[in-house]
Amino acid sequence: MTQQPQIAYFTEEASVDTVNARVSGDADARLTQVMASLVRHLHAFIKDVELTQQEWGIAIDFLTRTGQICDENRQEFILLSDVLGVSMLVDAINNRRPTGATENTVLGPFHVDGVPEYEMGANITQQGGRETCRFEGRVTDLDGNPIAGARIDVWCDSEDGFYDVQQPGIQPQHNNRGLFTTGSDGRYWFEGIKPVSYPIPDDGPVGRMLGQLGRHPYRPAHMHFIVSADGYDTVTTHTFVAGDPYLTSDAVFGVKKSLIADFEPVTDGPTRWRSEYDFVLTGAKGGTP
Amino acid sequence: MTQQPQIAYFTEEASVDTVNARVSGDADARLTQVMASLVRHLHAFIKDVELTQQEWGIAIDFLTRTGQICDENRQEFILLSDVLGVSMLVDAINNRRPTGATENTVLGPFHVDGVPEYEMGANITQQGGRETCRFEGRVTDLDGNPIAGARIDVWCDSEDGFYDVQQPGIQPQHNNRGLFTTGSDGRYWFEGIKPVSYPIPDDGPVGRMLGQLGRHPYRPAHMHFIVSADGYDTVTTHTFVAGDPYLTSDAVFGVKKSLIADFEPVTDGPTRWRSEYDFVLTGAKGGTP
Repeated sequence: MTQQPQIAYFTEEASVDTVNARVSGDADARLTQVMASLVRHLHAFIKDVELTQQEWGIAIDFLTRTGQICDENRQEFILLSDVLGVSMLVDAINNRRPTGATENTVLGPFHVDGVPEYEMGANITQQGGRETCRFEGRVTDLDGNPIAGARIDVWCDSEDGFYDVQQPGIQPQHNNRGLFTTGSDGRYWFEGIKPVSYPIPDDGPVGRMLGQLGRHPYRPAHMHFIVSADGYDTVTTHTFVAGDPYLTSDAVFGVKKSLIADFEPVTDGPTRWRSEYDFVLTGAKGGTP
Repeated sequence: MTQQPQIAYFTEEASVDTVNARVSGDADARLTQVMASLVRHLHAFIKDVELTQQEWGIAIDFLTRTGQICDENRQEFILLSDVLGVSMLVDAINNRRPTGATENTVLGPFHVDGVPEYEMGANITQQGGRETCRFEGRVTDLDGNPIAGARIDVWCDSEDGFYDVQQPGIQPQHNNRGLFTTGSDGRYWFEGIKPVSYPIPDDGPVGRMLGQLGRHPYRPAHMHFIVSADGYDTVTTHTFVAGDPYLTSDAVFGVKKSLIADFEPVTDGPTRWRSEYDFVLTGAKGGTP
């Protein structure tokens, strides 16, 4: 392989071109584009901070430990992506929507397939919780027309701050999870509990990094929603409990202002709380509803 | 924690400031600087290529597998750093030297402490090799004055392309390794074998990545040297065999033009080859020799 003279051998000045010129013209075009940009930004970072050999060693060790703590129940690299704002940034870039449409936020690691389908009004809490709550609202298009047949997939933590899948021996399966389908009025309503704030797993490399940065590991209380309908762009999002002390310091940066929902105390109903939130869907990407 | 309004909640536009504003003012100043730059360049990369959710998932999986293949004998993240030019860039930034001084290159993973100390002229090859070679030269300061008492730590692969530590049951301990100390003339000379080119380990995630980029895993043939002397800046480097087909495509970008050494055939001596290379040291960082 013959290179142009100035990039045949490594120099600090031409480091990016030296590395990127090595890629074969036969390599996948998108892979080539992504890797070239990665090398450019990675080298710019190292030059910017003039990373020391010792710091490089710390980084190698950190990445190695982050990989080695991963198993089928734990994904520390996703956690790292989350706390650096990378997960939210990728979500934002891939889910840009017009003003008025419901915004996305991260899926999170606790979604489960195959949960029970309920009739509207059902209670998704299979195991206690004093702060009972009625969730309700409408699913509409951007013009306010109700969307019939919209599927609403909901899940949240229990009152001790854990999801059912984190405590398989303690919580019943599918505690605080459910699937609902709207009728012709586009309305949804169900009962559950008011979610609570909780820390992301912070006993690994990412948790220690947060500690060194003086950042706490908490997420503000939220209810997860995936709202989908044929011909519409699926919305993966949360509603956040207004007033939560972690709203402006979510460890994973998941909060968008439009996703903060009021939770009102109820004095004359079957639940202690009530939260209303309307979902507005747009046409599917590349198609029309 | 109260944030400025525009960065209290996540937006694509203000993603960098939102993440970096979260760091406590009490955190270590250097850590804060490094992480702020990392977040800035990482987000710029993602925005530049508009990384898809699928590509993000591939990256998470790649990093996880890279961590999980690491053990006491294999460091796949260093390999990744090497093939992206990061190891050489960090080495270059931390070892800038005036013109005329011997340049650094990467240490590599095969250096060993506690190897035998030999008298000048000794043979470091304990197990065969037909392409015998005499290595010689001088250690001087920038003005050409000989440096007495300079320690020269050398190692290279054997004729099958493996270092002794890669084949502990096949090669004797310390095969093709040795330590020498210069006398008052600053000269060094010893016998060994002419090193050969070899592939870096390419059966893991990094090797597969190289394959997808159409890059080969080979390093051009080289002899490792660490040259140190009291009061002088230690040089960690290689001499590369002139004419090697991989000189301009080293998988880890280790080659600098000034490090290419002639290997001349010898017809009338005890070895088949002879390679002469002089090392020029500068005063220790922050001190004078």
